[in-house]
Amino acid sequence: MDVRPPDPHAWLRTLDRRAQLRGRAGLARTLRPRPPADDAVDLAGNDYLGLARHPDVVAAAHAALDGYGLGATGSRIIRGSTDAHAGLEDALADWLGADFALAYSSGYLANLGAIRALSGPRTLLVNDSHNHASIHDGCRLAGAETVTVGHADPAAVDAALAAHSGRPAVVVTESIFSVAGDLAPLARLHEVTRARGALLLVDEAHALGVIGPAGAGGAAAAGLGGAPDVVLTGTLSKALGGAGGVIAGPAALRQHLLDTGRTFVYDTAPPPAVAAGVRAALARTVAGDDLRAELRRRAALAVTVLRAAGLTVAEPDGGVVAVHAPGADEAIAWALACLDKGVAVGAFRPPSTPDHASRLRITINVGVPAEDFRAALDTIVAAAP
Amino acid sequence: MDVRPPDPHAWLRTLDRRAQLRGRAGLARTLRPRPPADDAVDLAGNDYLGLARHPDVVAAAHAALDGYGLGATGSRIIRGSTDAHAGLEDALADWLGADFALAYSSGYLANLGAIRALSGPRTLLVNDSHNHASIHDGCRLAGAETVTVGHADPAAVDAALAAHSGRPAVVVTESIFSVAGDLAPLARLHEVTRARGALLLVDEAHALGVIGPAGAGGAAAAGLGGAPDVVLTGTLSKALGGAGGVIAGPAALRQHLLDTGRTFVYDTAPPPAVAAGVRAALARTVAGDDLRAELRRRAALAVTVLRAAGLTVAEPDGGVVAVHAPGADEAIAWALACLDKGVAVGAFRPPSTPDHASRLRITINVGVPAEDFRAALDTIVAAAP
Repeated sequence: MDVRPPDPHAWLRTLDRRAQLRGRAGLARTLRPRPPADDAVDLAGNDYLGLARHPDVVAAAHAALDGYGLGATGSRIIRGSTDAHAGLEDALADWLGADFALAYSSGYLANLGAIRALSGPRTLLVNDSHNHASIHDGCRLAGAETVTVGHADPAAVDAALAAHSGRPAVVVTESIFSVAGDLAPLARLHEVTRARGALLLVDEAHALGVIGPAGAGGAAAAGLGGAPDVVLTGTLSKALGGAGGVIAGPAALRQHLLDTGRTFVYDTAPPPAVAAGVRAALARTVAGDDLRAELRRRAALAVTVLRAAGLTVAEPDGGVVAVHAPGADEAIAWALACLDKGVAVGAFRPPSTPDHASRLRITINVGVPAEDFRAALDTIVAAAP
Repeated sequence: MDVRPPDPHAWLRTLDRRAQLRGRAGLARTLRPRPPADDAVDLAGNDYLGLARHPDVVAAAHAALDGYGLGATGSRIIRGSTDAHAGLEDALADWLGADFALAYSSGYLANLGAIRALSGPRTLLVNDSHNHASIHDGCRLAGAETVTVGHADPAAVDAALAAHSGRPAVVVTESIFSVAGDLAPLARLHEVTRARGALLLVDEAHALGVIGPAGAGGAAAAGLGGAPDVVLTGTLSKALGGAGGVIAGPAALRQHLLDTGRTFVYDTAPPPAVAAGVRAALARTVAGDDLRAELRRRAALAVTVLRAAGLTVAEPDGGVVAVHAPGADEAIAWALACLDKGVAVGAFRPPSTPDHASRLRITINVGVPAEDFRAALDTIVAAAP
């Protein structure tokens, strides 16, 4: 047995070596900080409705900043709960048709908390392979047996549940998937979960504000709003223009999360100014059928223009327009060429893509002036590999 | 084999039943939202230096809110990086003597990210039993073998490392522990980790701003600032008055986190206004020896007054003053009686206390007027069970 002490730096050197290899393979990531006055046309962020800079949102945040100061100063349980949080949560629950809503510092923490809360000792988790990293991590942290099934495949979900019949089960899916922009077959998934006696957990991160009645998301669009066997998670950082996450669902879950939800109890509350700003964004979102109509028009225009140029574009179900790229290097070079011309778009490539394909990802932002959006599409076409 | 479908509501009913039992046992938690103008003397939050409402902090957040809008609109990798984030991270790295700092949406996510990054396939994690929930969860999520050792016990750490010699190892500890307020024996722990070839990961959540040169925390106080085998995590939501977390350490870790750190890459960036406000709080913190001297005076005064009244008080190493309570019910009743008299204090009880003891937790806040602080101590004594 080797009893010499290992070198504490060995692992750090390993990480460094791997980073260098990724760099040589064109896979290193770089942070590109932007100034407040940024000229780029933003088709890369998730501010679908352009609300992050909406005057009502900014004004509500300013007012709460003056009222409460910057930080919430403690856990929601101890000192962090403010009227701003309570008001936001009431409005979210009402919007989503849920018995309750609880706000989290991050959508990541909301998913970790929801999956753990729904996992008992014998629970089976059924996880869509395209789900977000936070869902995969949530399944892992919950410690429950997890079966990962093919993407958007109710028959595969049914088979997984049938293979473990008699056990409590939770099926976890996004509604609008973040990378490819497609909508999960929520109504069919709910038929399967109901028939098999399972719960359905839907992550509405990219659907809130974008689809459904009053923008209430994919579950609401599928008629599942307020269903007693459906739990929702989501983010407050995308169409709602702020930061943080949310869990909403049947009443019985709320007290459990307050008493035992580790990512709720042992985390400082979100800043009151963020809660107040998101509440203002929610009011605009609920009244935002005009914004959603414009979003759909722009998504359709993007598909038309890009396909006319011979590009392969998936049919978008929300605000994510995914364009095929021949490879990781090409995706990165394409996005950088667009940025050089003043258009920010996302480049998604392995390991961030669940199917190991590379894509240019265009997210629709109705806050961008219409003529800039149209011109940006031409820029994207001209820069195509 | 039972092939009848289980009832999807069975688990929710189980959660509800457990909540009712906790309620009857006095263990249910309640949110108590506070208005902006809250008369309570705050000895419950973690705003140690009173910076959450500092004019410089609020002004910096207002300016960034006007410049950037509310949300960062995307991951740091895609669209979320702003000059506000970069400026904060440069200042944090400089303060901590680290090669880099990266900001996270939450200290919880920083701990999950740091522990996972440091865990290779053969890594042993050595975890202090009093560590925060996010550290326990980080060990679990990392999937590395974890040995949980007795509290603040370098000999136990050494024995755990010796029992697994030849393997890469990471010892994880808080510096100022959140519940009992004691300081880990960091210098001795580092002697052990260095001798055994392990890395030391220190969570400075309750130490940043409170102890160490320029308030740079426990590792800095122990002469470990910039040590190449020490990695730091911390929160930006306590003495720094804002929200979020941080990882800081040796250069090799940074690119690894940018490329592969799931809780960094797959999370929306913190709001630019929060980053800007925290940066202003950091400037005041670095120049805040006056604030830290006042914090120490108040902690000493609290110990003197409470012990003179016959209460059992642990010697505080930072801003957390933990007072023995005879039981969970008594701790809650005590804290509620204080709140009735306008003094907010924490009540910690199982399962939030790692040693299954119940405590009143007083956190020093130098933003509270001195005369209110002195009067609050009398209130706490008068309400003692």
